[in-house]
Amino acid sequence: MTIGVCYFPEHWPRERWERDAEQMAEAGIEYVRLAEFSWAVLEPERGVYEFDWLDEAIATLADHGLKVVLCTPTATPPKWLVDRHPEILQADPDGTPRHFGSRRHYCFNSPVYRRETRRVVSEMADRYADEDAVVGWQTDNEFGCHRTVRCYCDDCAAAFSDWLRETYDDVDDLNEKWGTTFWSQRYDSFEAVDPPRPTPAEHHPSHLLDYRRFSSDSVVDYNRVHAEILRDRDDDWFVAHNFMGDFETLDAHAVADDLDLVTWDSYPTGFVQDRRAGAPSMDELRAGDPDQVGMNHDLYRGTNDAPFWVMEQQPGDVNWPPHCPQPGEGAMRLWAHHATAHGADAVLYFRWRRCRQGQEQYHAGLRKQDGSPDRGYRDAVAAASELADVDAAHVDAPVALLHDYDDWWAIDAQPHAPEFDYWEHARTYYRALRARGVQVDLVHPETDLSDYAAVVAPSLHLADDERAAHLREFVEDGGELLLGARSGVKTPSNQLHEELAPGPFADLAGVRVDQHESYPADVDLAVETDAGSRAVSVWSEWLVPDEDTETVATHTTDLAAGTPAVTRAPTDGGSVVYCGVWPGADLADELVSGVLSRAGVATTDRLPDGVRVNERDGLTWVSNFTSDPVAVDAPDDADFRVGESSLDGFDAAVVEAAASDLSVRRSP
Amino acid sequence: MTIGVCYFPEHWPRERWERDAEQMAEAGIEYVRLAEFSWAVLEPERGVYEFDWLDEAIATLADHGLKVVLCTPTATPPKWLVDRHPEILQADPDGTPRHFGSRRHYCFNSPVYRRETRRVVSEMADRYADEDAVVGWQTDNEFGCHRTVRCYCDDCAAAFSDWLRETYDDVDDLNEKWGTTFWSQRYDSFEAVDPPRPTPAEHHPSHLLDYRRFSSDSVVDYNRVHAEILRDRDDDWFVAHNFMGDFETLDAHAVADDLDLVTWDSYPTGFVQDRRAGAPSMDELRAGDPDQVGMNHDLYRGTNDAPFWVMEQQPGDVNWPPHCPQPGEGAMRLWAHHATAHGADAVLYFRWRRCRQGQEQYHAGLRKQDGSPDRGYRDAVAAASELADVDAAHVDAPVALLHDYDDWWAIDAQPHAPEFDYWEHARTYYRALRARGVQVDLVHPETDLSDYAAVVAPSLHLADDERAAHLREFVEDGGELLLGARSGVKTPSNQLHEELAPGPFADLAGVRVDQHESYPADVDLAVETDAGSRAVSVWSEWLVPDEDTETVATHTTDLAAGTPAVTRAPTDGGSVVYCGVWPGADLADELVSGVLSRAGVATTDRLPDGVRVNERDGLTWVSNFTSDPVAVDAPDDADFRVGESSLDGFDAAVVEAAASDLSVRRSP
Amino acid sequence: MTIGVCYFPEHWPRERWERDAEQMAEAGIEYVRLAEFSWAVLEPERGVYEFDWLDEAIATLADHGLKVVLCTPTATPPKWLVDRHPEILQADPDGTPRHFGSRRHYCFNSPVYRRETRRVVSEMADRYADEDAVVGWQTDNEFGCHRTVRCYCDDCAAAFSDWLRETYDDVDDLNEKWGTTFWSQRYDSFEAVDPPRPTPAEHHPSHLLDYRRFSSDSVVDYNRVHAEILRDRDDDWFVAHNFMGDFETLDAHAVADDLDLVTWDSYPTGFVQDRRAGAPSMDELRAGDPDQVGMNHDLYRGTNDAPFWVMEQQPGDVNWPPHCPQPGEGAMRLWAHHATAHGADAVLYFRWRRCRQGQEQYHAGLRKQDGSPDRGYRDAVAAASELADVDAAHVDAPVALLHDYDDWWAIDAQPHAPEFDYWEHARTYYRALRARGVQVDLVHPETDLSDYAAVVAPSLHLADDERAAHLREFVEDGGELLLGARSGVKTPSNQLHEELAPGPFADLAGVRVDQHESYPADVDLAVETDAGSRAVSVWSEWLVPDEDTETVATHTTDLAAGTPAVTRAPTDGGSVVYCGVWPGADLADELVSGVLSRAGVATTDRLPDGVRVNERDGLTWVSNFTSDPVAVDAPDDADFRVGESSLDGFDAAVVEAAASDLSVRRSP
Ligand SMILES: [Zn+2]
Ligand SMILES: [Zn+2]
Ligand SMILES: [Zn+2]
Repeated sequence: MTIGVCYFPEHWPRERWERDAEQMAEAGIEYVRLAEFSWAVLEPERGVYEFDWLDEAIATLADHGLKVVLCTPTATPPKWLVDRHPEILQADPDGTPRHFGSRRHYCFNSPVYRRETRRVVSEMADRYADEDAVVGWQTDNEFGCHRTVRCYCDDCAAAFSDWLRETYDDVDDLNEKWGTTFWSQRYDSFEAVDPPRPTPAEHHPSHLLDYRRFSSDSVVDYNRVHAEILRDRDDDWFVAHNFMGDFETLDAHAVADDLDLVTWDSYPTGFVQDRRAGAPSMDELRAGDPDQVGMNHDLYRGTNDAPFWVMEQQPGDVNWPPHCPQPGEGAMRLWAHHATAHGADAVLYFRWRRCRQGQEQYHAGLRKQDGSPDRGYRDAVAAASELADVDAAHVDAPVALLHDYDDWWAIDAQPHAPEFDYWEHARTYYRALRARGVQVDLVHPETDLSDYAAVVAPSLHLADDERAAHLREFVEDGGELLLGARSGVKTPSNQLHEELAPGPFADLAGVRVDQHESYPADVDLAVETDAGSRAVSVWSEWLVPDEDTETVATHTTDLAAGTPAVTRAPTDGGSVVYCGVWPGADLADELVSGVLSRAGVATTDRLPDGVRVNERDGLTWVSNFTSDPVAVDAPDDADFRVGESSLDGFDAAVVEAAASDLSVRRSP
Repeated sequence: MTIGVCYFPEHWPRERWERDAEQMAEAGIEYVRLAEFSWAVLEPERGVYEFDWLDEAIATLADHGLKVVLCTPTATPPKWLVDRHPEILQADPDGTPRHFGSRRHYCFNSPVYRRETRRVVSEMADRYADEDAVVGWQTDNEFGCHRTVRCYCDDCAAAFSDWLRETYDDVDDLNEKWGTTFWSQRYDSFEAVDPPRPTPAEHHPSHLLDYRRFSSDSVVDYNRVHAEILRDRDDDWFVAHNFMGDFETLDAHAVADDLDLVTWDSYPTGFVQDRRAGAPSMDELRAGDPDQVGMNHDLYRGTNDAPFWVMEQQPGDVNWPPHCPQPGEGAMRLWAHHATAHGADAVLYFRWRRCRQGQEQYHAGLRKQDGSPDRGYRDAVAAASELADVDAAHVDAPVALLHDYDDWWAIDAQPHAPEFDYWEHARTYYRALRARGVQVDLVHPETDLSDYAAVVAPSLHLADDERAAHLREFVEDGGELLLGARSGVKTPSNQLHEELAPGPFADLAGVRVDQHESYPADVDLAVETDAGSRAVSVWSEWLVPDEDTETVATHTTDLAAGTPAVTRAPTDGGSVVYCGVWPGADLADELVSGVLSRAGVATTDRLPDGVRVNERDGLTWVSNFTSDPVAVDAPDDADFRVGESSLDGFDAAVVEAAASDLSVRRSP
Repeated sequence: MTIGVCYFPEHWPRERWERDAEQMAEAGIEYVRLAEFSWAVLEPERGVYEFDWLDEAIATLADHGLKVVLCTPTATPPKWLVDRHPEILQADPDGTPRHFGSRRHYCFNSPVYRRETRRVVSEMADRYADEDAVVGWQTDNEFGCHRTVRCYCDDCAAAFSDWLRETYDDVDDLNEKWGTTFWSQRYDSFEAVDPPRPTPAEHHPSHLLDYRRFSSDSVVDYNRVHAEILRDRDDDWFVAHNFMGDFETLDAHAVADDLDLVTWDSYPTGFVQDRRAGAPSMDELRAGDPDQVGMNHDLYRGTNDAPFWVMEQQPGDVNWPPHCPQPGEGAMRLWAHHATAHGADAVLYFRWRRCRQGQEQYHAGLRKQDGSPDRGYRDAVAAASELADVDAAHVDAPVALLHDYDDWWAIDAQPHAPEFDYWEHARTYYRALRARGVQVDLVHPETDLSDYAAVVAPSLHLADDERAAHLREFVEDGGELLLGARSGVKTPSNQLHEELAPGPFADLAGVRVDQHESYPADVDLAVETDAGSRAVSVWSEWLVPDEDTETVATHTTDLAAGTPAVTRAPTDGGSVVYCGVWPGADLADELVSGVLSRAGVATTDRLPDGVRVNERDGLTWVSNFTSDPVAVDAPDDADFRVGESSLDGFDAAVVEAAASDLSVRRSP
């Protein structure tokens, strides 16, 4: 496990570079990412390349034993290119161009931009193909950031028609699969289908879903343009991309098929403010939410079932969330440990030094703008030293949590309650698993499930018989399955199944959904299990179990009182729990604990909020995201590789023990 | 009284139609509405008509004794028409087109679209003129839904100039009546007057008012295109339109002049969420607010002073409000009774079967998508049976509540407090009347008032001498008049009257408004009457009564303390109460009770919230929109035609007694 | 000191004018403002002028001894001009024109509109150059109202490029000063730099700052077009402009360089609702916030260091805030006294008579629309009489509060917390000074400071060595300086200084900022001083004092606990307090009191909220903006010129005494 940093030598005088490299090496840094956003510096006018500065920067770093990751600079097309080809700009649904002046203003489907991309990437790849210090590449930067996956320009309109032509047999097939008889929405050619532009009422959900698929696919294609050129020039370097956290609009599974290494950018104190329901606590403002961060670690690890990198790790205070209190003491070290515990092999802090110019002046670096070390620097040095001899081992997770971007897009198009967020709902189950100390793979439903003891599928919304057969195979092999609300409701084309939900899963789950309801988040709903009353919220289904299906929880809220809310169907193999509500934390724990127990997965006692454990290759990390100290009860012979059994606020420890052999509690 | 259903055979295989018809007939259904939104199916390409499926559907239904209401399919112009004539699209104020992809994307003033409308309506009318099973027509669907009454396209700009030319003597007349000297807004031709497009500051209120009149008139004209063709083909069938609830932008009085039958679409649990101030209670989420629904019943009944239809009745959970808990047990039956009690002659549930495709998949039908009966089906069957022998009798309301869309538009353009909603304010008075068990006609102020004992005019904002004379005649004939705040403030052109409010009504009401104030809704205001302190809110006027005018309530809030707030002026006939505040429920009850008492109108004791009674043709309905049981005290000899004296939650009963002979209380 | 009124004779029949003039004279009115927004009346078609009505109006007023202030009518270009030259319209960032139909729809950079402006202003100036009754001019009206300072049209794009060309040596100089290497934002010509149009992410802060400077300069230039023509025609009349309250986007200092008289428009009960953080109290809804109003008085007085006018004084209820309760009894008189106390020489009420037409019908005048006197009329008469013999004396303020619009614009572009409002933050210090009865000059940082005993600089965000030297000179001369948070962070081009904040001020202040943090407003933060714990909020800096610098307050909030928050550096002259937090009222009082005490400035005891005193030329005004009575303890020989030692709610008194000799308390 190793530490790295993102570095922008072009922002600083060349005289400084040597000292920067020296200080990086001293800090224990191994990887340095370069050249992101550097197009205008590399090619100040069309066809005039200036690579000297980058050559020198790479050489300076290499002299200190540092390894370089280069970026294709395509996230920021220069002004000269926009002026020459304004048609490369993205457009809003109403046609307003997304102008030059920030970043990500290009359309993924622009033929001109693809040509220019090929040109600049080829030039860079040619230049550095024989440079040993360059070990890999990041394509572009954070595809889709600032809501840019979905563009509505004329190039996209044409590309969408082409995409539909490839997807459907003919336009009648589209009309049939979408269901365009409704509201006279029939199309007589693929050309006639537009992007979803402003309309009086909401769009057709099948149209929306396909535009979301098409938009994501456009990015996949665009990334492949980079990957193919880079691979063509040098097979030794890796091709990576840096994804974002809790990010809906781009299918990371599909992009990852073209990558050697999956990486993502982790900003815990921003994420709790701008992409999670509920106001963050003061501790969360200082260190983030370990399950929110961890779920992304597990998503990106699961994407290629391999160790991942954190390509950008929050180094201190940042500029973009509403507020930025200083991170807790040690938080920047904690995040590196927590990432490693989840399977990271490298954590690169963003950035080396606070930038004096442009949009990110309020974003800290490991060093301040005057070059002196900042709070994150001390944490990074500690992490580099503590993690140096941790191996890049596979994380063996006993549980798979199934996630399909198509389901996210379909539910987002018709949430049926403003509070019904697909990802928040999935996180409820993820939290419950993590609160029992279990490692979780977030994987696509079509993944081979045979190595998992248990599978949790929060919402397999779009479903067909093939998907049902895949799950049946898992269960019949003895697997334990927990299937959540809103599963099996729609066809893959976003029509309702004619049979009642869970549609293709109904026989397997031994249950039918008689009714569904949505409620404002502040309405108290409850169900009753053998263990007592359990809070639920927002979503409620009235279940009709098959004869052999047992009722696990029963609604107790007025109209639905007495109706089954959660059921369990035994099979000859494992069993299938169907949960027709959005469970509160206690119900989620009860359901998940039952599944894990039946599946024979060893767990911890329920962990305190904000404290998590992760086992990787015989080591268990304890990560304390709270300001309170915690105490770890470990087996007597367990060796603490890092830290000890008493952890301070925002502290981490590493023990040679199985996670399930530990017990962790807040210490008084 | 009869039950019906909206049916879309084109969404289902033909094999199913026969069984659907059979089940409808069994359920007691009499009317079936067909062909709404079916343009692309009827005319899949321009000039190629496919009526066979509709012929067959009508025949199948007719075979089971069902009567058919057809719809002109113009709410959804097909894509081929939009592609050929993109100029038919509506435009937002900033010029952005409202594109194809949902519904209602056409402009009412488009000459091309009127031509196409004439063509398709003529084809359909010709086809079915001799078809006995077709008893009537619905023109288009919900004119103005999704904020589409007001369009800002070039066709509308030209039509607006024409409308002004017809409305004013010449442009100097317009300049004079609007008052365009203010801010140099003078026009030198009708062509120079644009639609109210985006401007730095707010628009001229007279300009806004006339654009709202013009926009509404454009729909009236467009509806007439349909009505004339349909009447021309067959005089026997009725022409109807389905209006919406609490709908501001379209003058239903004016549209109704061209209709034989007025109908509207009632979705009680949606309305409490998206078009009413205040958060809905749990009971309201399950059944709606009887006064919100009832006020629309009475508006549309009053429009033609005749029984109306509910063309679309909520059948269960629906897709478009923020949340959709399941309706209360029996609510779908309750709504049919409540509509009948208010004067409905038919209630058609929307729709027969939950639709598998498109935007309304989350909208229930009487039957589920798999064809099995849903909760609403059982309720509809009960209602059909219970209401079968109720006659289509006239509702004799002793009280008129005056409402003019022009006043709504004028106050909406200058509310002077975000909380001042014209319709909410009117509903305060309506609630007070209904809480005393009185039937109310909502009518235009120019209606003949001679048959009413009392008139309540919540806000006759725009006024001239003619309107004042009309009210004076009513009062001098002995009528009791209650005139509410903000009356008589403006000329019909939305200029201030030079005389103080209530302007033309001042002599009649015997009072002048010295000052007006607006307050945030959370400021507690109060007045004092003989009966004690009474809460008021948002709006406060300081009144100066004439010598013979009595003070009914006096302000008690600091600055205004001691100033008259409500007055009563006797005349040789009846008397005129002027209420210069937005009354709380208690003050509204006190004022309304006084008026009814002086007018000799028999009332009930004040009814519990959510429970209402309506007398129609010697029968009185008790409607319980709450989950609590209620008990009815009726005369000993009163026969319960439906239900009994103890009602469950969401239950209805029908008694052979006068409303004022009943007393209703929540039972413990 | 004198009273005036804004009058629109064109809105009323000529027969009425004589009586209006007579009533004005009787009321004690001296100045009458005319012709604002009158372009379409003065020039009903291009080149056809109708000045007769204005001649007559002026003559009528002059006959009654009234003096006339004329307005150039350019805030409202007539429709005929817009139709002929639609290119004069402003444009939104996305290109949408700001259409005709309200006011201020013209672009300041339109060459056509400047030509038309010259034409109409010349015509008017020629016409009235020899008219004795016309004593001065108001240019246009409220430049920038309705967010119109910043336009994004093509004329502005071209003018911005020109502005940049004048500002920078060459485009490389711009690239260097802005720092355009970041995100490849380099420009290769001035033409390539666009206005900040819609972009995927936020704009470059240096780009934003320069566009804000350019936009403000465009208004300065446009105002100069008026001023030069008017001065050219007649040197005797004054040229004024009426600015707005709490107005960010226009640099009043720069506009004022071209004016003889600075005036502004004061609407206290609107300001507390629409441009201040925090919900207004009931008293504030009735009279406003004396410090919010006073800060604008002092800003505009400070702009030219001369008595100013209130060109528009709220006359009663107004139309544009969310709500308008009636002003408190006497509030319209109180405002005139309060303005005079702050250095006003004339207060003109807006307007004479409530207008029957157009957008401002809900805006009171001194007289109602029927011509009868309104509440404001009585107050205005009282004020005119009480203030008649007050001299137009200079206000001698011992304290300067430094304010630079560039700092406002820079912080607004990157607030780093939604709650960090530059002006609110400055007002915290202003309030503390005013609560000690001290007169304050709001002045530009480059102002000669030698006459001030103390200087408070809430946030000198952009800084260079020159600005630091200017303050050093003041301090070394013995001045006391209080420097607030976020000072010295950026270069004048909005790049971060390489040295830590307060950058160029660091040596003078003897302190460095180690870290900064922002917090949600509801997080309780505190510091400790010798006097105890003191609340602070939103912004927190961790300070590192130099060796000789004393710590005045220390953070007590968790992570920062023990770190200095406020420091004081002695010098051979005065001392420099640096405050690294947004102080609560108590800390602000403590810091300000210390500064004033060391500077030898006499103060009052801390005044009650809402009650203020101002000394001007030997007289001290007591202004009570609350509904509670207050009692004044004055020296025995002090004469009350107006009122007495007991003041009612919303009352004012004038005493012949120094402010610091008074003590004021709420009376029980
Ligand atoms: Zn595109
Ligand atoms: Zn139109
Ligand atoms: Zn412009």
